[in-house]
Amino acid sequence: MQEYKITQFASDNYVGAHPEIIKIINESMLVTELPYGKDTYSVHAKEEFRRIFQTECEVYFFATGTASNVVALQAALRSIDGVLCSDIAHIAQDECGAFENFTGAKLFTIQNDNGKISLDSLKKYFNSIHPIRHNYPKIVSLTQVTEYGTVYTTEELKEICDFAHAKSMIVHMDGARLANAAAALNKSLKELTADVGIDILSFGATKNGALLAEAVIIFNKSLIKDFEYIHKQSMQLFSKMRFIPAQFLAYLKNDLWLECAKNSNNMAKKIVNEIQEIKSLRICYPVDANEIFIELPTSMKDEFAKKYYFYVFAEDLMEKTSLIRLVTSFNTNSDDVEALISELKKAEIHYLK
Amino acid sequence: MQEYKITQFASDNYVGAHPEIIKIINESMLVTELPYGKDTYSVHAKEEFRRIFQTECEVYFFATGTASNVVALQAALRSIDGVLCSDIAHIAQDECGAFENFTGAKLFTIQNDNGKISLDSLKKYFNSIHPIRHNYPKIVSLTQVTEYGTVYTTEELKEICDFAHAKSMIVHMDGARLANAAAALNKSLKELTADVGIDILSFGATKNGALLAEAVIIFNKSLIKDFEYIHKQSMQLFSKMRFIPAQFLAYLKNDLWLECAKNSNNMAKKIVNEIQEIKSLRICYPVDANEIFIELPTSMKDEFAKKYYFYVFAEDLMEKTSLIRLVTSFNTNSDDVEALISELKKAEIHYLK
Amino acid sequence: MQEYKITQFASDNYVGAHPEIIKIINESMLVTELPYGKDTYSVHAKEEFRRIFQTECEVYFFATGTASNVVALQAALRSIDGVLCSDIAHIAQDECGAFENFTGAKLFTIQNDNGKISLDSLKKYFNSIHPIRHNYPKIVSLTQVTEYGTVYTTEELKEICDFAHAKSMIVHMDGARLANAAAALNKSLKELTADVGIDILSFGATKNGALLAEAVIIFNKSLIKDFEYIHKQSMQLFSKMRFIPAQFLAYLKNDLWLECAKNSNNMAKKIVNEIQEIKSLRICYPVDANEIFIELPTSMKDEFAKKYYFYVFAEDLMEKTSLIRLVTSFNTNSDDVEALISELKKAEIHYLK
Amino acid sequence: MQEYKITQFASDNYVGAHPEIIKIINESMLVTELPYGKDTYSVHAKEEFRRIFQTECEVYFFATGTASNVVALQAALRSIDGVLCSDIAHIAQDECGAFENFTGAKLFTIQNDNGKISLDSLKKYFNSIHPIRHNYPKIVSLTQVTEYGTVYTTEELKEICDFAHAKSMIVHMDGARLANAAAALNKSLKELTADVGIDILSFGATKNGALLAEAVIIFNKSLIKDFEYIHKQSMQLFSKMRFIPAQFLAYLKNDLWLECAKNSNNMAKKIVNEIQEIKSLRICYPVDANEIFIELPTSMKDEFAKKYYFYVFAEDLMEKTSLIRLVTSFNTNSDDVEALISELKKAEIHYLK
Repeated sequence: MQEYKITQFASDNYVGAHPEIIKIINESMLVTELPYGKDTYSVHAKEEFRRIFQTECEVYFFATGTASNVVALQAALRSIDGVLCSDIAHIAQDECGAFENFTGAKLFTIQNDNGKISLDSLKKYFNSIHPIRHNYPKIVSLTQVTEYGTVYTTEELKEICDFAHAKSMIVHMDGARLANAAAALNKSLKELTADVGIDILSFGATKNGALLAEAVIIFNKSLIKDFEYIHKQSMQLFSKMRFIPAQFLAYLKNDLWLECAKNSNNMAKKIVNEIQEIKSLRICYPVDANEIFIELPTSMKDEFAKKYYFYVFAEDLMEKTSLIRLVTSFNTNSDDVEALISELKKAEIHYLK
Repeated sequence: MQEYKITQFASDNYVGAHPEIIKIINESMLVTELPYGKDTYSVHAKEEFRRIFQTECEVYFFATGTASNVVALQAALRSIDGVLCSDIAHIAQDECGAFENFTGAKLFTIQNDNGKISLDSLKKYFNSIHPIRHNYPKIVSLTQVTEYGTVYTTEELKEICDFAHAKSMIVHMDGARLANAAAALNKSLKELTADVGIDILSFGATKNGALLAEAVIIFNKSLIKDFEYIHKQSMQLFSKMRFIPAQFLAYLKNDLWLECAKNSNNMAKKIVNEIQEIKSLRICYPVDANEIFIELPTSMKDEFAKKYYFYVFAEDLMEKTSLIRLVTSFNTNSDDVEALISELKKAEIHYLK
Repeated sequence: MQEYKITQFASDNYVGAHPEIIKIINESMLVTELPYGKDTYSVHAKEEFRRIFQTECEVYFFATGTASNVVALQAALRSIDGVLCSDIAHIAQDECGAFENFTGAKLFTIQNDNGKISLDSLKKYFNSIHPIRHNYPKIVSLTQVTEYGTVYTTEELKEICDFAHAKSMIVHMDGARLANAAAALNKSLKELTADVGIDILSFGATKNGALLAEAVIIFNKSLIKDFEYIHKQSMQLFSKMRFIPAQFLAYLKNDLWLECAKNSNNMAKKIVNEIQEIKSLRICYPVDANEIFIELPTSMKDEFAKKYYFYVFAEDLMEKTSLIRLVTSFNTNSDDVEALISELKKAEIHYLK
Repeated sequence: MQEYKITQFASDNYVGAHPEIIKIINESMLVTELPYGKDTYSVHAKEEFRRIFQTECEVYFFATGTASNVVALQAALRSIDGVLCSDIAHIAQDECGAFENFTGAKLFTIQNDNGKISLDSLKKYFNSIHPIRHNYPKIVSLTQVTEYGTVYTTEELKEICDFAHAKSMIVHMDGARLANAAAALNKSLKELTADVGIDILSFGATKNGALLAEAVIIFNKSLIKDFEYIHKQSMQLFSKMRFIPAQFLAYLKNDLWLECAKNSNNMAKKIVNEIQEIKSLRICYPVDANEIFIELPTSMKDEFAKKYYFYVFAEDLMEKTSLIRLVTSFNTNSDDVEALISELKKAEIHYLK
């Protein structure tokens, strides 16, 4: 099917669900269960999360990454508070002001460095905040994998968490692609979150083989108290809830999350390797996980766009180049990559003519 | 399975999904699709809605009834505005203040009459609203089937819509169980909404055979303009959206919604008929659809509660009676009803001893 | 001046300021001072409040009663919380939804009894609140003097505070006319607030001789922490702040507040005494302070309205009677009352003809 | 008085009120008036504004600049909308998130150029806004005089208004120091606002001789409809309102605003002239009105701070220099400036030693 091919590298949320996820969704659709999170799938998925993180974390389920981000932040916020995040953070750039409308609070955006917040820029920004005139700095929010496809090392994460905690701040992680970071660093989910000091985690599975499954994992017990109310008020307490925790049960079992993430990371590496031959392109950020940002001539991009969907991040008309993003998925395979590279080469030839 | 039986009449959101819904969900999980509502399922489901309502209505998809209610209201509201609704409206009593936090606006609650707002009480309330001191009355919100299981006639709906429009107000319908109302009145969905003057409809399928499928249908074109932004900001723009419109496609096809609603209404009628023999009970509101509110001795309720889940709405200790609710579902059958009646009789015997 | 006379009993906010208040305002307008509450007037007024309440209370200044109410409540609220108040509370009926928009939280309105919340109705309402479905009950808000001009006794206040605290709730007092209540009960401000267990007080002077002076007094130390931020965010941190605390300095000195309140209460008593002769009238609520609610024939009201401004609360066309309110002020005198009674008698004669 | 001297150049809101303002405040404090803006002062002040702007503008009164900014923006905003403003705009940097909490909407901050938004940077930012992912761009907000003390020319203002209107945006002006801009450019208030296309203006008098007087002037009729509700909901509808319009009556009469602004601008010019001799200082931005931003050695600044209050905007430890701000007022005189220069010279000597 033509359309299937051309959406292959647009994003990891164009594809369907992994067979193991489909199987358990089918099971969950047949049974009668208590609603609103009292179902057996919720109970078991929460146990599974506690096993994985080896701590009495609390777990809530969501249907969108936006909701799991905004609502996790709300757990620690009053309207007078602020969240320090990077200037390209999903909460700042991609959620149509859901954060501001739902929390009434403020985002403090810090200039990113290859997608990351550096400890130095965080410190500098924190020190520039004036009491009372500015909102109170309450949370640092990090995205792992970052919006530019780079991955914070555990050392970087720990440094930031330590600084935040020393300043009485909470650390939130937007882990929409946390599985890809764990695969990239060869670390467990626990090593990348609870162990470095993350207080609250928005953990996504949708982009890595699930259909529609996001969770907020609360490690810091002080944030648990009101969360059941916040979750309900956020319009995310599903009646037939079982559908979401069921997906997590399959996702966490036998490290399905890792298998899926490894595949997409490996396919991204394969692209990076093979793309070297195409001299008209430039990869803009380290490809740590499954996202590849490419600068290429605008006319070459236009040719390529006839065959593939992808996001265009910037078009610099002066230089006649564009910045685009390619993303690999849990089910991308070598043939897909070969076809992509072949098409890019054709587009280059077309451009060079 | 014991647990299956005892949840049977607790609510219509304890059960799984209808086989036709399951079938199409499975189909949707396999394909690669554009995300965020650009998928073919969204396109086709919207066409199907337009066919059914015979108008160029706009359609947006949601995962919870709370979201579809609050966000539909937000389409016509600024924080200075208010919504007139019944004192038992779901938006007022069951959504943990999601309305107030998301919109910043106010609910004006009108004393219900058998679950409904009467035209007289609406007029009286409207006239008591003071300009500037009170929020501006902008929307009337009606629940069909009401929270007490009663059904507005088309005449009642039309009268209220006419009054609201004469006062420059918009009319919203919370149609979480609209299918049951249509089955009860032998009217089409169109006759109960667009034809009587409803401006915006929150249309639920989850309680009537779907897994997780809610939609907002906008009939009044003036409300369409900003809705795409409001929908996104409400944290309900799903990446793998196809999952929800797919359910609606099956739901609307071959009148599956009607078949499901007829069954649950019929099973409720059967309960009403057979329950007459049980003299210790009293049915409190007209059973127009699939919800039955019963007043019974508290000790009898306690005995019954050993076998069945149900919601207790009030416990009047003075009189030693309780108010409970039973709800039938798309897959309730005669055997289920027989078992229920038998168990209620046993509970009565226990009480009378 | 004709207009002066006819506004005399419309409300206690139609008149100007007391000469002592005017004097200190003039002083404050001449000096150069630190802005934003660091001025010497703020420092001294806060000390004065601490002397009066004999406790290390925190004090913030406001320009409207609405702001001092809403922002005091915000001190203890998150959007998931709710405030129990009477159905006629100023925060529920007279502030155009400022509470909902600024806090995102919910008002739970309890049917009043002569303007008050009774302990029984408070308990009953509290017990009807469902966890998660409803907002979390966090604050009880009482108005003293109530919106119907009645006064809670210290016993009534203490009972409610004790119940609220036993349920982990905070008690807020809307003290727009607290001085009148203190004068009526012959109690100190401290006995009516800190001593009975009020946690946070909105204390008004505007209606009792000041020009524009409201304060929030925080007795409960747990509410102090963030208040400086909340105050700023509420858009009430005045640059030339001195103007408001100056008024409080004069107001609190030599019990000016008490002198003013005694006069208005006495003038209200005088009206009540003399109005007995007018048989077509009926006083609707106990006149505990300086507000008089009168039911009178609508045509008599219309005649009276030719000479005096007043608020009409209800017009019952069936019975052809109206409910109006008269309010006395710090500068109302016996001649004003005589003129009022005389005009009411003329209106009665006109009606009886 | 020592303290008076040392606060002289800290800000234009440390001083008291102009004698003409004091006079009319005194008059307004004696009379009985209709409350909530129905008073004769409100009526006359609005007429005066209409005379000055020669248009049927609508006028509302406020007690703080923060309120008049946030509420003016709210007139044109829904939570899905956004406001383009400079990165140093008062609404973004000095109001503790009042904008976000009160409106639920988003600020898009554009890198300033000498305090201003350039047309180019505005266009570039506007073009980078993604539909749906980002809030809808609805308002451009300009500060005149800017937060760095520079003044937009009428040509610059007109260009920006034209661009904004071409893109269906509204233009708001934060005119906290608009009088100083008018004095600097030798233009009328009308020429700087209505004539260039400003839709809604927050007009301050507090910093230029008033005690506490801010107004929102609405030129664009489409914004008037709901404003009375928004004003009330913003907690800024004062009962004894007369106090604020009275100040504007005196302020606008005989061009008192211009006399005050000319004085402070002239005194700033005098400082700029005399400060040239002090070689250790550097003036950082064009001194168009009454604010002077100075970079000086940190140890010199510390010495100077022993005698004068002032705001420190940045301390660059590497270079051992600081950025401070001096502001002149309506009542600053030549002696004050001489004393200031003398003290700065002493601080320089101390530093050079």
